[in-house]
Amino acid sequence: MPPQDETTRSSYQHFVNLTAAYSRVRAFTEQLCEPLEIEDYVLQTAVEASPPKWHLAHVSWFFETFLLRPFLPGYQAFNPAYAHLFNSYYEQTEAGFWPRPERGLLSRPTVAEVYDYRRHVDEAMMRLLNACPPEHEATVRARIEIGLNHEQQHQELLITDIKYNLAYNPLRPAYRADLPATPQREPAPLTFSRFEGGLHWFGAEGDGFAYDNESPRHQRFLEPFQLADRLVTNAEYQAFVDAGGYRDPALWLSDGWAQIQSQGWQAPLYWEQLDGQWHETTLAGRRPLNPAEPVCHVSYFEADAYARWAGRRLPSEFEWEHAAAGRPVSGQFADAGRFHPQPAAGGEPLEQLFGDCWEWTASAYLPYPRYRAVDGALGEYNGKFMSGQMVLRGGSCATSASHARATYRNFFYPHERWQFKGIRLAEDIA
Amino acid sequence: MPPQDETTRSSYQHFVNLTAAYSRVRAFTEQLCEPLEIEDYVLQTAVEASPPKWHLAHVSWFFETFLLRPFLPGYQAFNPAYAHLFNSYYEQTEAGFWPRPERGLLSRPTVAEVYDYRRHVDEAMMRLLNACPPEHEATVRARIEIGLNHEQQHQELLITDIKYNLAYNPLRPAYRADLPATPQREPAPLTFSRFEGGLHWFGAEGDGFAYDNESPRHQRFLEPFQLADRLVTNAEYQAFVDAGGYRDPALWLSDGWAQIQSQGWQAPLYWEQLDGQWHETTLAGRRPLNPAEPVCHVSYFEADAYARWAGRRLPSEFEWEHAAAGRPVSGQFADAGRFHPQPAAGGEPLEQLFGDCWEWTASAYLPYPRYRAVDGALGEYNGKFMSGQMVLRGGSCATSASHARATYRNFFYPHERWQFKGIRLAEDIA
Amino acid sequence: MPPQDETTRSSYQHFVNLTAAYSRVRAFTEQLCEPLEIEDYVLQTAVEASPPKWHLAHVSWFFETFLLRPFLPGYQAFNPAYAHLFNSYYEQTEAGFWPRPERGLLSRPTVAEVYDYRRHVDEAMMRLLNACPPEHEATVRARIEIGLNHEQQHQELLITDIKYNLAYNPLRPAYRADLPATPQREPAPLTFSRFEGGLHWFGAEGDGFAYDNESPRHQRFLEPFQLADRLVTNAEYQAFVDAGGYRDPALWLSDGWAQIQSQGWQAPLYWEQLDGQWHETTLAGRRPLNPAEPVCHVSYFEADAYARWAGRRLPSEFEWEHAAAGRPVSGQFADAGRFHPQPAAGGEPLEQLFGDCWEWTASAYLPYPRYRAVDGALGEYNGKFMSGQMVLRGGSCATSASHARATYRNFFYPHERWQFKGIRLAEDIA
Amino acid sequence: MPPQDETTRSSYQHFVNLTAAYSRVRAFTEQLCEPLEIEDYVLQTAVEASPPKWHLAHVSWFFETFLLRPFLPGYQAFNPAYAHLFNSYYEQTEAGFWPRPERGLLSRPTVAEVYDYRRHVDEAMMRLLNACPPEHEATVRARIEIGLNHEQQHQELLITDIKYNLAYNPLRPAYRADLPATPQREPAPLTFSRFEGGLHWFGAEGDGFAYDNESPRHQRFLEPFQLADRLVTNAEYQAFVDAGGYRDPALWLSDGWAQIQSQGWQAPLYWEQLDGQWHETTLAGRRPLNPAEPVCHVSYFEADAYARWAGRRLPSEFEWEHAAAGRPVSGQFADAGRFHPQPAAGGEPLEQLFGDCWEWTASAYLPYPRYRAVDGALGEYNGKFMSGQMVLRGGSCATSASHARATYRNFFYPHERWQFKGIRLAEDIA
Repeated sequence: MPPQDETTRSSYQHFVNLTAAYSRVRAFTEQLCEPLEIEDYVLQTAVEASPPKWHLAHVSWFFETFLLRPFLPGYQAFNPAYAHLFNSYYEQTEAGFWPRPERGLLSRPTVAEVYDYRRHVDEAMMRLLNACPPEHEATVRARIEIGLNHEQQHQELLITDIKYNLAYNPLRPAYRADLPATPQREPAPLTFSRFEGGLHWFGAEGDGFAYDNESPRHQRFLEPFQLADRLVTNAEYQAFVDAGGYRDPALWLSDGWAQIQSQGWQAPLYWEQLDGQWHETTLAGRRPLNPAEPVCHVSYFEADAYARWAGRRLPSEFEWEHAAAGRPVSGQFADAGRFHPQPAAGGEPLEQLFGDCWEWTASAYLPYPRYRAVDGALGEYNGKFMSGQMVLRGGSCATSASHARATYRNFFYPHERWQFKGIRLAEDIA
Repeated sequence: MPPQDETTRSSYQHFVNLTAAYSRVRAFTEQLCEPLEIEDYVLQTAVEASPPKWHLAHVSWFFETFLLRPFLPGYQAFNPAYAHLFNSYYEQTEAGFWPRPERGLLSRPTVAEVYDYRRHVDEAMMRLLNACPPEHEATVRARIEIGLNHEQQHQELLITDIKYNLAYNPLRPAYRADLPATPQREPAPLTFSRFEGGLHWFGAEGDGFAYDNESPRHQRFLEPFQLADRLVTNAEYQAFVDAGGYRDPALWLSDGWAQIQSQGWQAPLYWEQLDGQWHETTLAGRRPLNPAEPVCHVSYFEADAYARWAGRRLPSEFEWEHAAAGRPVSGQFADAGRFHPQPAAGGEPLEQLFGDCWEWTASAYLPYPRYRAVDGALGEYNGKFMSGQMVLRGGSCATSASHARATYRNFFYPHERWQFKGIRLAEDIA
Repeated sequence: MPPQDETTRSSYQHFVNLTAAYSRVRAFTEQLCEPLEIEDYVLQTAVEASPPKWHLAHVSWFFETFLLRPFLPGYQAFNPAYAHLFNSYYEQTEAGFWPRPERGLLSRPTVAEVYDYRRHVDEAMMRLLNACPPEHEATVRARIEIGLNHEQQHQELLITDIKYNLAYNPLRPAYRADLPATPQREPAPLTFSRFEGGLHWFGAEGDGFAYDNESPRHQRFLEPFQLADRLVTNAEYQAFVDAGGYRDPALWLSDGWAQIQSQGWQAPLYWEQLDGQWHETTLAGRRPLNPAEPVCHVSYFEADAYARWAGRRLPSEFEWEHAAAGRPVSGQFADAGRFHPQPAAGGEPLEQLFGDCWEWTASAYLPYPRYRAVDGALGEYNGKFMSGQMVLRGGSCATSASHARATYRNFFYPHERWQFKGIRLAEDIA
Repeated sequence: MPPQDETTRSSYQHFVNLTAAYSRVRAFTEQLCEPLEIEDYVLQTAVEASPPKWHLAHVSWFFETFLLRPFLPGYQAFNPAYAHLFNSYYEQTEAGFWPRPERGLLSRPTVAEVYDYRRHVDEAMMRLLNACPPEHEATVRARIEIGLNHEQQHQELLITDIKYNLAYNPLRPAYRADLPATPQREPAPLTFSRFEGGLHWFGAEGDGFAYDNESPRHQRFLEPFQLADRLVTNAEYQAFVDAGGYRDPALWLSDGWAQIQSQGWQAPLYWEQLDGQWHETTLAGRRPLNPAEPVCHVSYFEADAYARWAGRRLPSEFEWEHAAAGRPVSGQFADAGRFHPQPAAGGEPLEQLFGDCWEWTASAYLPYPRYRAVDGALGEYNGKFMSGQMVLRGGSCATSASHARATYRNFFYPHERWQFKGIRLAEDIA
């Protein structure tokens, strides 16, 4: 029987909602892993791509560390060694962490044990949700929200890491052979939407979940600009490749030129030429490049070079947010189960703002004015990464719809490209 | 006899001035090298610290490549191989360039030959200044200004590279034993100057030389803030060191923590402990740390960690520029011949804004709105470095006074510390 | 019904024997893998330690490449891509090979598919054994013998690689918890057996299988020497460790000193100190060091340094072979199923010559006089490794008994220690 | 007036001879440096190629450390810091040593100071030679002999390091432009000298200086063999290059193939193709390859691959010594002042055994039976390098004639090729 008085009821309802959300998010993580073979869970083919097994355990460790240990009386850890093994990068926990480049060097715990660990955490979380001491309710609620958003981030990483791991294999195995095919649609010619500029507000408002790095809400001045109405397509990007874009240093940032030279890059990640025809490896295996799809898996350096070659530029994260603010958060997300960017429908302004591909912006990932990270290990979540990385906006086909919003700031190093990252052009106007 | 009509006369006067400036700047470069032994000219002890010999030649190559070859009819190169050897990083020249990490692996040309090369270029430059075809005058004038500013930048690098090279040697040889001692002054307690915020203009105005990266002039919105009235001192920074600042990950950016761990940093560059007392190696050799002097040779990571520990933050480059705009460009520059930061006089607002130490800002080095690099190799001067670096402002004791200004944007990677780089704190206010 | 005439019968009998041997050897490989979890098959924690899955496939690839493709008419490869994936290092095959350091980056083929591959090869091999064209019989027979010896070598690698992979895991999981315990026996004091020296014959005689590197049989001159009657024990080696052996450069070869400095070695592989007590990780998990057991998992550098510290030296491979020639090949081999060296029985001359631990010799791995590798890819089996490595003799607790003999030359780089490698001392005598 | 009694006189004479030898050897070192510019003294373009300045100081440090400090009462070090700076690799001295890869990162002491250091040591050595306490006379004499041989080794390194440093420079400067040209002689067809084999003695006899690694004298058994009558020529080696020798893995040791792949080697060091013609950089600068000269600057891997391609093999060090024993030590040495290998005269048996090029042997550098290094730091001279290296025999055009002998064992890693190293073929005979 639910509680009677109003405050408690609302709080109860919130917990009911949280309980449902918890179950839904946790289940989706496991659903994503269903197509995997046991062997696939163990692999780490790049430092930044963790084994699926590790993701499954780490997100559980998060609940264990920030909720169960501090707030569930009598909680018994599933295995004390996991505090070390499945901590990602939190320096302010006692246990330290197993080195990130070596996550793929552990066959134990087995996949079955990791699922047992999840069950153990889930049961304890249910106990906590059912019997949270009132004085901790607000903190617990807030941390569960972070924990669920955290798990959603790792769902996206699961998809991108599985893609990377499988594509690394010369057999190019598919994650799922039954993924729906992409329509062969002729993309509309590139048009732009105009914005006036001026002084505007940016960052998250009070309602709804947002990460600390989206705050505080503050003002910025924008010059007039226009923003492309869709993402750059494979066909457009291939024209850049065919024109020798990867061989002309005048188009590249210095660090970008060094990167493509040292790595021998000649096209986006997952592109390869077979018998004179570009192919792309997707989660459904390798197939001829679809010219209508948005170009994806490019680094900031490539996005920037393409924009320079095209006579345009990348938008700042504030231009993007200004354009996106107030628009519906609709697009192709992980919920669609396709896990591959789709061609734009065409003819509408500002298509694909949300979903399909994260969009590189020209903004460095830096704190907003008056930003301060929270104290303790949770303060390491976002704040300590504020150097050397660039902001991406909008979410991708591997992001959950409920995880996307106009103020969301994703961030990666400019050379990284294993996420679903694409390009939207911008331009100065008078 | 000088020309009679007005336009020509003004142009003539400009060339007279340029000629004098050319002679002055070129002479100062060589004056800086006078205390060196021949052996010192060859050394490169870090990838980013070039041999003095290389600097002497490279700045001459700059005049040869961008002025003498295109604009002086009949110009004969001193040695065609130098087009390759002394190009720094310009990808859009035909000759390519000798790898930067290997500049110290060349004993030839000898120092004497490099000075001969300078004489050769100087004589040709005099011919060009005396007989510039009118249709190229504006370009020639503009490029000479860039060439002289370029040489001034390398004068600063000469000083910092010589310091690095000599300090690397366990004998800790002095560059000049006769450098004047620093006063043992008690620094005034740290005070702050307040600024209201609002919408302000930034970037270079039309008059006077400025680099392309200082343009276009544009508006930004600032929140209210206050800025420290002097640089952080050695004594203040040592308190951070003594308090275990280098062992507490909660104070550091993630990349910064990785940097100090992998490099074993426990203090600023040039600090070392001897018999329990901190010493500092300067261009006058090693000596006990002077607590009153500004802390110098810190990375962005250290500046940021210090500010966090001190409960403050670093200013943005726009806060700094807003505070500096309109103030006299006075301070301790290379012209003083001390080549070491001095203690603040004390008691004045915003001391040491110019000179002494470059000041790390919290701003990533990115293009200003509507910035476009010029076409051709000269466009590589500044624009291609706009990723991964942070802006510094104000100039140092190794900068020429005539090279400093309020809009000047210096930039380095966040881990670099061999330049004279210090810390000015800022703080949010209501 | 078996064939009637004599030659055919003997040949038939040989094939019957080979068929039995083939089945036995192939079955033992799989038996060794029975205790593994699927996840364990995928792991590669060091460049030289391949995933179990890879070993299972590679030994099958060997039969496919050197027997089925050339000699079984109509043979269909299980998967053409395996020619590349499971070639180890044979440069003279068309398919090339997947890089050795990346064998652990492949989740596919799955373990089940690899076992299917084995079945496919086994069935084809049975067809070949039953219907070998007479003109190829001798070659086929010889190559099957090599193939079986090759698989036996990989059985040993399977055991040592599984040990390495599991021990790398901070959970220190056991390969098999039910391995029999080692007796706690007091080792007999070290005694020596004397040999006169003189001109002797070395290398394999005509009868019985031997690798090409054991030939030709030839003469060498030996000085008088004596050889220890048992292996060096953990207790003896620990005395060297406790005496600061790893901190005294006078005891080490220059390359060895560089190795222990750069790697931070302070004891043999698998030793670690817990609460002041040395422990050792074995295939049965971690346990206190047993002082009576032979020291194992030492590099050549450590064996050499220990011998110098002990005032003795390592034997040459010829001294070892001279001592072993004509003695029964008995000892603790993989057949015993213990997979860990045992203490010497004590009191007998030249105990533990065979089995327990491979014994480092002071001989570089070089060709015997008049040695020539066979033509083609099979010639790469042994010959191309004849630089930079040292010879080990005698076999280990991970070697099959039928694989050991007095002329057998094993070889590894002097820094490698993940095999079961121990120390037998020698000494000059008048 | 010389001493009167016989023992003293002989000892006196010995010292007179040593004094003369000391002066001669020390002077030759400096004579080798005369053509250098100051800048050339500072350079280190490869880890194994030390700056000339360092050689000049290190050989003096050797006398200071092993003779002046222990045996000259009241000796004052020129600069105590040199004990660290100019120690090469002796771990058993207190001062430790400056890292070898960083010898080229020191501009101080200057060249002039290093010459002063030499004068300081020379004067003190004269005092020691004139007034050696009788009880130390034997040790002092022995160590001076080592010191002089040591300096002769560094004379050879001086020449090879200067060659390497200058050739690294794209200007290809000459060490001396006036070096005599090599005769354009047609080499005699390759013939062989036969040897019977059997049991023979090897190693240094008691008379005359020899390093410890040439002892003890001992017996070895040789099979019948024949040895080429001259070195392999450039023309012969070029045939191997032209035949694709560097692209055929079947010809190479595994480590050798890895080496040429990772380094991109396609020919010996100092060879480069200009307009389709092979050139070679020598100490006299770059010039077309002389086909008659011996091929030089090859690694062991290349020597071994060439021999395999040619259907021959390299000799063992014992075969070489057996052939050289008793023959006059004559050939083209550093004394000739040409510093480049010359074509064989032709028609004589076993030409070029001494001088011209060191000859790679198929023998690993290992201790002779019963070898023991002396105690203390001097014991590190040869003994600690007895792993991973191969023996070379015979001396080169950069070796002093008085430094060569039939028992001399030089040793280098199999990939190293900056010394003057060539190839003499051998072959098995019935």
